[in-house]
Amino acid sequence: MANTKRFGVSIDEELLERFDKMIEDKSYDNRSEAIRDMIRDRLVEREWEEGEEVMGVVSLLYDHHERNLSNKLTHCQHNYHDLIVSTTHLHVDEDNCLELVAVQGKGQEVNEVADKLISMKGVIHGKLLATSTGAELI
Amino acid sequence: MANTKRFGVSIDEELLERFDKMIEDKSYDNRSEAIRDMIRDRLVEREWEEGEEVMGVVSLLYDHHERNLSNKLTHCQHNYHDLIVSTTHLHVDEDNCLELVAVQGKGQEVNEVADKLISMKGVIHGKLLATSTGAELI
Amino acid sequence: MANTKRFGVSIDEELLERFDKMIEDKSYDNRSEAIRDMIRDRLVEREWEEGEEVMGVVSLLYDHHERNLSNKLTHCQHNYHDLIVSTTHLHVDEDNCLELVAVQGKGQEVNEVADKLISMKGVIHGKLLATSTGAELI
Amino acid sequence: MANTKRFGVSIDEELLERFDKMIEDKSYDNRSEAIRDMIRDRLVEREWEEGEEVMGVVSLLYDHHERNLSNKLTHCQHNYHDLIVSTTHLHVDEDNCLELVAVQGKGQEVNEVADKLISMKGVIHGKLLATSTGAELI
Repeated sequence: MANTKRFGVSIDEELLERFDKMIEDKSYDNRSEAIRDMIRDRLVEREWEEGEEVMGVVSLLYDHHERNLSNKLTHCQHNYHDLIVSTTHLHVDEDNCLELVAVQGKGQEVNEVADKLISMKGVIHGKLLATSTGAELI
Repeated sequence: MANTKRFGVSIDEELLERFDKMIEDKSYDNRSEAIRDMIRDRLVEREWEEGEEVMGVVSLLYDHHERNLSNKLTHCQHNYHDLIVSTTHLHVDEDNCLELVAVQGKGQEVNEVADKLISMKGVIHGKLLATSTGAELI
Repeated sequence: MANTKRFGVSIDEELLERFDKMIEDKSYDNRSEAIRDMIRDRLVEREWEEGEEVMGVVSLLYDHHERNLSNKLTHCQHNYHDLIVSTTHLHVDEDNCLELVAVQGKGQEVNEVADKLISMKGVIHGKLLATSTGAELI
Repeated sequence: MANTKRFGVSIDEELLERFDKMIEDKSYDNRSEAIRDMIRDRLVEREWEEGEEVMGVVSLLYDHHERNLSNKLTHCQHNYHDLIVSTTHLHVDEDNCLELVAVQGKGQEVNEVADKLISMKGVIHGKLLATSTGAELI
């Protein structure tokens, strides 16, 4: 970190003990790292609410035997090629694939692409993960 | 707080600025209060996951003209009277009521009562808010 | 329901079996009731996103010995009396109270009141439950 | 779908109109597809709660200049190689990468890997998306 500051947190002893137990369970090295992660998590929520440039990952679970679906998914992704950063295909079992589509844009645009992909007939389960470009997070 | 401790958080300057902006928007007096709230929020999630004694609030929106519903809700609440702390009725408009049922018990028990109430025919919208008895939070 | 319609859902046999098992566990009388609940739940989310008139419940867990807090909570609620429908106080144990504040207004206004109340020093755990006035739900 | 069944849903006319508007906005072809997606979404939640075999995607945003982080992430993934299906690296800008780690296992195991990866110093934002192997969903 280029320019590190330090601030103090006052906290009841018992609450601190429970916090320490929680971050140990989650494998954090130290309190600062855990606190920074909680802060960044809230800030990412705000980036989405406030229309900043964000990143999302759309997961699409489908049976690759589903007629024509793979073509339709590819076609849809090309229509939004300005927003789509990358796509990964995984082979879950003989039938099912998990496709991970990374999308970058305003929150509303990312939601639109996600809706289009997730609503396609044959997609068994689709979901959107909301993350960040990190440009403002450090 | 009976026994206050203090610890330091190291953080990048820009991230701290964004955090300060966020907590100002949310009307926090100071950083410690905001940090403690984030910590307690995560701890409450864990109380629910780990089967500790918790509190929940079930909201039930319904039309009080709905035949027999009010009796059935009351009857169901009596069946779980050990778990139910209190019920408040609100009159939203001429037709709709919002009933707030405070429930205390293990997470699983609270979920069971909530499912029973929310699934009743005539309940327009039901939801469960997960909070705490505060016994372990301070 | 004043004017009931009926539509058909085609669904794979195994998926239907798993759905039936789930709604039985959740105590639903029949599939229509469970489907309507899922639909209304999504519509309530949209009411909040799209700035319609909504209802929320703010839960505030606090120690009633906390100096001056109860006055400050009351004062804040009076500042927003146009939005606040009702408040219920519960006595969780010797120390802790759970206050349930029902709020009605645009989503943004309800969020603002909730932020103000939840951020107060001494509030151990505060949370906002998002529900509806039911005006558009039936 | 190998063995399609059909069931009827009774619903108030106005509620149906609002549902139709919502699924049109989300680009669904027809009501059955939207209903099936809502059902499968709830069933995936249950797979996670009930300890069935599930799939998750962990997103890890980090600065690739962060000293040694990339090695530590790789090392950690090798420790859990039985659970990790695939990893994709994306270059968001000159500094930041988004790594997408697909994980398959019991919900608890997937959560453990996710915690380990997300808590590492240098990971700017990490998150877990909960999806399914599809084995039971169709």
